Amino acid sequence: MGRWEPNARERLEQAALDLYSERGFEQTTAAQIAQRAGLTERTFFRHYADKREVLFGGAHALEEIFVDTLAGTPDTAAPIDAMASTLETVAALFLERHEFARQRQAVIMANAELQERVLIKLASLSAALAATLRRRGVKDPAASLTAEAGIAVFKVGFERWVGDSGERALADFLRESLDELKVVAAGAS
Amino acid sequence: MGRWEPNARERLEQAALDLYSERGFEQTTAAQIAQRAGLTERTFFRHYADKREVLFGGAHALEEIFVDTLAGTPDTAAPIDAMASTLETVAALFLERHEFARQRQAVIMANAELQERVLIKLASLSAALAATLRRRGVKDPAASLTAEAGIAVFKVGFERWVGDSGERALADFLRESLDELKVVAAGAS
Repeated sequence: MGRWEPNARERLEQAALDLYSERGFEQTTAAQIAQRAGLTERTFFRHYADKREVLFGGAHALEEIFVDTLAGTPDTAAPIDAMASTLETVAALFLERHEFARQRQAVIMANAELQERVLIKLASLSAALAATLRRRGVKDPAASLTAEAGIAVFKVGFERWVGDSGERALADFLRESLDELKVVAAGAS
Repeated sequence: MGRWEPNARERLEQAALDLYSERGFEQTTAAQIAQRAGLTERTFFRHYADKREVLFGGAHALEEIFVDTLAGTPDTAAPIDAMASTLETVAALFLERHEFARQRQAVIMANAELQERVLIKLASLSAALAATLRRRGVKDPAASLTAEAGIAVFKVGFERWVGDSGERALADFLRESLDELKVVAAGAS
């Protein structure tokens, strides 16, 4: 099926982000993205179901890595420590990705439908993490609350990292957010 | 504009829930809801923009009460304690509402679009609570994390309450979830 297209997904992703930033998500078509990437529309649809999915192509892989990492932490670790070490591993995926993440976030923040999509992905991730903790023997509500805490830390830390200069790594922001959540929960004002 | 319709909103709400439970959300029309409630379709649309909004008619009021209560807690309270007392106040709104909440939750869980709507309402609520904490002088990321923690406790506690027999009050479940979040964050396994 067609010629081999080196890095087709990455090229489509970057072309899409550039076009969404320049003219807005609504005003961009799949055909335009393919053209900007120097590929055919057919190649676009071999990789992505629609123009929205270009922005969320990594979400499934991210959820898998989150779940696999959490499942692989030692059973003896307290749930919040297992979550902390999972966040460290996940953060490493975003090394050298600050500019991309910053650009993507700006596109998402300009579009309510895309923001909803993020919420859905995070809710799915939270449910998957809670299920993983239950399989490790963590009871409810602790399992659900640890998962929600992990997602809250990821969300808040990620947004702070994206809004920062890019010099500090995501792992720093996640660690800082988790520490702050502990302080907050302990009732310090 | 029309006759006075006593308790029109409550009647429409209950009729909608009954029909959604019986035949499913997709298979129910606004006209059928109005008929079941003994009201006209015109009355339906005077109160609700569409059949989805019948399920979320209270969301705006809930957010207002959440925000006003949080804003009214003493500035000297630690953010998490201000959140705890806000949750107590909010829980009181759900007294005598267990059966309604249980029925509503079952309808929502059967429909992906409605579940997304819940996520959007909760994200809006979280943002409003974080903004309220910032106005009280709470810095970020503590403000965002306290808000996210409050929403996590509300979500997990609410789901457990809805799944329970209805004998214990929502306030109990919220208190229990907040206590568990504190234990989880402190790193006990």
